[in-house]
Amino acid sequence: MKPSIPQGTRDFSAEVVRKRQYIFQTIRNVFEVYGYEPLETPAMENLETLMGKYGEEGDKLIFRILDSGNPFSKDFFVSLGEYLKYYNEVSKELSRRTGHSEENSPFESPFWEINPEVLESIAEDLLKSKDDSSKYLPYLKQEVSSKALRYDLTIPFARYVAMNHGKLSFPFKRYQMQPVWRADRPQKGRYREFYQCDADVVGSYSLINEVELANIYAEVFKRLGVAVEIKLNSRKILTALAEVCGGADKMIDITIAIDKLDKIGLDKVKEELVQRGLNEWQVKIIEDYLSISGTNAEKLTHITNLLGHTDAGKKGIEELSFIIEYCQPSTVNCQLDFTLARGLNYYTGVIYEVKALNAQMGSIGGGGRYDDLTGLFGVPNVPGVGVSFGVDRIYDVMEELKLFPADVHTGTQVLFFNLGEAESKKSFELMQQLRSKGVRCELYHENAKFDKQFKYAEKKNIPYAVILGTKELESETCNVKNLVKGEQVTIGFTDLLHHSF
Amino acid sequence: MKPSIPQGTRDFSAEVVRKRQYIFQTIRNVFEVYGYEPLETPAMENLETLMGKYGEEGDKLIFRILDSGNPFSKDFFVSLGEYLKYYNEVSKELSRRTGHSEENSPFESPFWEINPEVLESIAEDLLKSKDDSSKYLPYLKQEVSSKALRYDLTIPFARYVAMNHGKLSFPFKRYQMQPVWRADRPQKGRYREFYQCDADVVGSYSLINEVELANIYAEVFKRLGVAVEIKLNSRKILTALAEVCGGADKMIDITIAIDKLDKIGLDKVKEELVQRGLNEWQVKIIEDYLSISGTNAEKLTHITNLLGHTDAGKKGIEELSFIIEYCQPSTVNCQLDFTLARGLNYYTGVIYEVKALNAQMGSIGGGGRYDDLTGLFGVPNVPGVGVSFGVDRIYDVMEELKLFPADVHTGTQVLFFNLGEAESKKSFELMQQLRSKGVRCELYHENAKFDKQFKYAEKKNIPYAVILGTKELESETCNVKNLVKGEQVTIGFTDLLHHSF
Repeated sequence: MKPSIPQGTRDFSAEVVRKRQYIFQTIRNVFEVYGYEPLETPAMENLETLMGKYGEEGDKLIFRILDSGNPFSKDFFVSLGEYLKYYNEVSKELSRRTGHSEENSPFESPFWEINPEVLESIAEDLLKSKDDSSKYLPYLKQEVSSKALRYDLTIPFARYVAMNHGKLSFPFKRYQMQPVWRADRPQKGRYREFYQCDADVVGSYSLINEVELANIYAEVFKRLGVAVEIKLNSRKILTALAEVCGGADKMIDITIAIDKLDKIGLDKVKEELVQRGLNEWQVKIIEDYLSISGTNAEKLTHITNLLGHTDAGKKGIEELSFIIEYCQPSTVNCQLDFTLARGLNYYTGVIYEVKALNAQMGSIGGGGRYDDLTGLFGVPNVPGVGVSFGVDRIYDVMEELKLFPADVHTGTQVLFFNLGEAESKKSFELMQQLRSKGVRCELYHENAKFDKQFKYAEKKNIPYAVILGTKELESETCNVKNLVKGEQVTIGFTDLLHHSF
Repeated sequence: MKPSIPQGTRDFSAEVVRKRQYIFQTIRNVFEVYGYEPLETPAMENLETLMGKYGEEGDKLIFRILDSGNPFSKDFFVSLGEYLKYYNEVSKELSRRTGHSEENSPFESPFWEINPEVLESIAEDLLKSKDDSSKYLPYLKQEVSSKALRYDLTIPFARYVAMNHGKLSFPFKRYQMQPVWRADRPQKGRYREFYQCDADVVGSYSLINEVELANIYAEVFKRLGVAVEIKLNSRKILTALAEVCGGADKMIDITIAIDKLDKIGLDKVKEELVQRGLNEWQVKIIEDYLSISGTNAEKLTHITNLLGHTDAGKKGIEELSFIIEYCQPSTVNCQLDFTLARGLNYYTGVIYEVKALNAQMGSIGGGGRYDDLTGLFGVPNVPGVGVSFGVDRIYDVMEELKLFPADVHTGTQVLFFNLGEAESKKSFELMQQLRSKGVRCELYHENAKFDKQFKYAEKKNIPYAVILGTKELESETCNVKNLVKGEQVTIGFTDLLHHSF
C-alpha cells in the first residue's frame, strides 16, 4: 500500500514549519503590543453553529463529521429495512393525517419532502406496536452528522462572544491563529486545510480601532520586510453609490459586480451590472465612480462631489478622512480605493485589503467593520471590526522575494562525531553543557566512518562538527570544524563551552 | 438559539492559551537543543491510513469526515429508492449467480452480508437496462467518507516517513505538537480534541537515543518546575518473563494484565492472569517478578537472578543497565519499574512512563522503542524510539502546584485613558513609540467617565494607567498610575518612553 494524504492538504517539513512560525510569531507580537489577546476554539463546531452563515455556496464547502462509526453499517441497513417495511403503513397513515396522495409506490413517493417530525412520529407509533422493531428506532433517529470542521475563525469567534458575553469585558479584543477547512476544489494556492490569523475587537464603535488595525497591518508587514499598500473603502460609500444611482435595493448587486473588477475588467463589470438590471445612466455613474484616481486628498474631493450630499456618503467620507488623517503616511501606506468592495455581506463600514507591492499576488490581508455578528447567536448590538492575514500567500510572497532571514533556521548547529564508546560518553557530557546554554547539538548515533558522518552533517545543513577521538580525549581537547568555511581549530573542553556557534 | 460547542471540546481563553503556550514552548526548546526538528501533518488523513492501526476499539473512536454534503440528501434517498426498487430483481439474479436463497423478503434478507462487489455489478447491470435510472448510480457508488481526523501523531509520522523516506536523512529526528481527535465518551480530564507532543527518532538502533529521550524528559520537567520520576522497563524483560514461566505465547496476555496493576491491584491482576489461562506456578513467578523492589542496582540484581539466563532477559537487562549508567542520577531521576507494561502493542524495547511526584495524577508522559512502524506503509526495517508529553495533564499538575510563572501573562500592560480627541491623538503617538519597544498598550476606546475606564483596567488586570488630560497636554507630562500599588507619578513625555512597565 502506497501511503498518501488527502487532496488539498499538506505536510510541512522543518524548514517550512519554521518559516511559517516566523510569520505567526511576528503577527502575534504585533497583535499583543496592541492589546489583543489570544483565543483558541475547537476544530469542531456544532453543525447548527456553522450552517447558514456562509451563503449557499459556502455551506456546501463545510466538512461534516460523522457522529460515530460507519453510517452504512449493518445496523443502519437493518433499521432502514425495518423502516421501509412499515413504509406502506406509514403511507396510509400519512394520507389520513395529511391528505397526501397514497397512490405512488413507496419508493417513488418523495417522503423526504414530508415534515420529518410528522414522519417520525408516525413511524414511532407504528414501530412501537411491534415489540421486536422498536430497538431499531435509535438508529433511525440518530443524527448522522451533528458536527463539522470550522470554515473560518469569525463565526466561531462570534459564537464564543455570544456564549461568554456575560463574562467578557468589552471592548473585547482577541486574536486567533488556527487552521480552517473548506471542501473546495483543490488547485494551485488553494488548500482544503489552511491557517487564518485574525484580530477583531467587538463592543466598540470607535474609529480608533480602524486606525489601530491599519497600523497593525503596516507594522506586521514592516517587520516581515514586505512592502504593502493598505487599500481602504467603506461600505457606506457603496451604499451611497447605490442610492445616488437610484438603485438602493441594488447595493448587493453593485457590490458583487465591483468586487470582480480586478479579475474581469471594467467592460465585463459593466455588462454584469446591466445583466443585474441596472440601466445605462446608472452604469455611467458607477463607471465615473470607478474611475476616481489621484492622491488620497484628490480622491476625497472627487468622492465628496459625487456622493457627499447623501447621509451615507457623508458619513463614509468622514470616517475615511479620520482614518487617513490619523495614520502617519510615513509609516502606514493607506490608499483610498473606491473600487474595493469585498465579497462578504456582513461588512457595514470601513473595509480593508492589503496588497504586496513587489509581487504578483492577490490580496494578502483583508477585513472590515461589521455591525451585528453575534446577533446570529441571539446577542444583538455588538459592533465590531477585524482584520485577517493570509499566511499562505504571505509565505509565498516572502519566498518569492527571498525575505526570510537566514536565522529562521533553527536546525542542529553542532554535530559531535561518534568515534567510539568512551569518546561518545565525553561528547555527551560536553553536549549536555552546550545544550543547557541553548546550543542545538547532536551526537552521531553510531560509530561510523568519517565520510558517513560528514555526509549526514552536510545533508542536514549542520554548520559545525566537533571531532573528539582517543588522542583528544587524552589531551582534553577537540577539533571544531566549520563545515561551511572548511576551517578547523583545536580547542580545550572548557573553551568549547564558550565557543560561539 | 443558544450557542454551544460539541461535547468534549473546549474554548481556551487568553490566560489558558498563554499557559499552554508556555508548556509547548518549553518542550519545543528542549526538543530543539537535542536536534529534533518540527513536522506538521494535516488534521485529515485518508481513512485507509488510519483504519486497522489502533485495534478494534481504537478504530471505533476515529472521527470520520463526510466527503461532501449530506449523505441523507434527497439524491441519496432517490438513489436508495431506485436501488431498492430493483432489489427483487437483484435478489433473483443473486440467487441465480450465488445460489443464495430467494425466499426471504427483500428487507429481511441480509444483503449487506453479500460481497458488495457482486451486488454492485448486478445492480449496475440492472440499472443500465433502464435509461432513466443509471444517473442514480454515482450516488450509490460514492464513498461517503474517505477521510478522517488523525487519532494520534505516531501513525501520521509513520505515514510521512514512508512517503518521504527517499528524501529524508536517517536517523530522522522529528517532533510534532498538534491536536488529535477521539470519539471517546467525554469525562473529566478526557477530551475529544486534545494536543499531543511527540519526539521520535527513526532509523537508529543506538541506545544513546533512549538516553537522550530520558534526558529530554528530565530537562523539560526541570524547566517547568515539576518534580518527576521517569519509570523504565523493557518489553524484552516482559518477553523473558513470558518465556520463563513457560508461556511465551502468553506475552500479550501477561502485558495486558500487568498494565492494569495500578488500577486494579495485585489480587485482581492474579485473577485476570488465571482467567487468561496461566497456571498457579506461572502466576507465582509473575508475582515474584512484580514484587521486585529496592534501588536500581538492587532491582538489576534481582531481575538478573530471575530472567538473566534467557536471551531476551539478558539483552533487556543490558540495555536498561546502559541507560541507567549513562543518565546522571543528579539530573535524571530514572527508576526501573518492572511493573510498567504500557498498552500499545508496537513497543519492542525500552518503555518509559513519567509520573509527577507531588500530584495525584496518572502518567504525564510515556513512550518506547518500536521496530517497524513504517512497515505498515510498505517501508520495512525502520526502527525507532519516541516519547510523548501529556500536555493537558501537565497543565493540570502545574495549576494544582501553582507552578506557572507570573510573567506567563502577556496581557495589556498600560491602559491610556481616553480624555478627549486631542488628548487621544497625543496618547496614540506615545503608545506607538512604546509599542515599538514591545510595551503592550491600549487606548480606552471612548471618552468615558474615569470610573468606567478604571473598571476596564481592573477587569483586564492591566497594571498601569496613563492619564493625560488637557493640563498634561499643555505641560507635556502625564500621570502614570500603578494600579496594583495605587501609587501615581507625574512624568514628562520623553521619560514615559523610558519608564519601565
